[in-house]
Amino acid sequence: MAEKTKSTPLNAVFVNAFLNAIIEILETMASLTPTPGKPFIKKQDNSRGDISGIIGMAGHRLQGAFAISFQRRCIFDVVERMLGEPVTRINDDVIDCVGEITNMVSGVARANLSTQGHEYGMATPTVICSDDHTIAQATKEPVVVMPFTTPAGAFLVEVSLWRTES
Amino acid sequence: MAEKTKSTPLNAVFVNAFLNAIIEILETMASLTPTPGKPFIKKQDNSRGDISGIIGMAGHRLQGAFAISFQRRCIFDVVERMLGEPVTRINDDVIDCVGEITNMVSGVARANLSTQGHEYGMATPTVICSDDHTIAQATKEPVVVMPFTTPAGAFLVEVSLWRTES
Repeated sequence: MAEKTKSTPLNAVFVNAFLNAIIEILETMASLTPTPGKPFIKKQDNSRGDISGIIGMAGHRLQGAFAISFQRRCIFDVVERMLGEPVTRINDDVIDCVGEITNMVSGVARANLSTQGHEYGMATPTVICSDDHTIAQATKEPVVVMPFTTPAGAFLVEVSLWRTES
Repeated sequence: MAEKTKSTPLNAVFVNAFLNAIIEILETMASLTPTPGKPFIKKQDNSRGDISGIIGMAGHRLQGAFAISFQRRCIFDVVERMLGEPVTRINDDVIDCVGEITNMVSGVARANLSTQGHEYGMATPTVICSDDHTIAQATKEPVVVMPFTTPAGAFLVEVSLWRTES
């Protein structure tokens, strides 16, 4: 294990990049404009959802993870809008859509951050299915939670991303 | 989204690095020697567990993710061995231990692979809690599953890691 390294808070820049990316992707892919709530620093491991996409980010001097957790009703509506067919259970199509959304949001945020000199590589997205699961990020660094609402239900985004200095 | 890139299968090298790392970490941290079963290529999204640690890996030409999923009885035994106190429910100590194990296994595998010229950065580990959740990796590349048994129960490891060539 590396010793804990000094970190530089760049959360506002990172939060905005992910917030804008989520809105852009859902508008483009699902013709859905989610309403962002007030972001907050995660105090407990209380992010919950029925299906979550998680992707790791790693660069020379950046480390983090991004997770997006949907309530069941909310993801059914998103997938129905993406695929044009009704969805009533979490199946392979839903899992694929969550993986794809996770990948695309991270990719758009990465492209935006790259223009500001923040470079990182994207890991493989992972999709977790289970009613009301919880997500914890194993870091002492701040994790920012962004709640969103849609007419069909809520989803939650959390991002940790920081510069490391050896 | 990037186009699908050509990949070079290096699974045996990667699988061995993670397999050895898991055994080393559990022996060192928990005085526990798990028995590895036969690794197989994941065909369905059927990795299940009650608590899972997930970490993304990303490098200039490598991309992947590593997940370790414990049955409840198994992780209670591991944590009890690590901390020296009985554990009967998934609490912050258990979540911390799973995050730590995930980070350390990935770190040891990374160090081993680095000596063979395979370099990647590690993302922040994420810990998922929910009885009998499932994990899917959103990739068309092979995902290798490694089952392990211990006297207190089973755990499952899955790794996807491959070279990308633009």
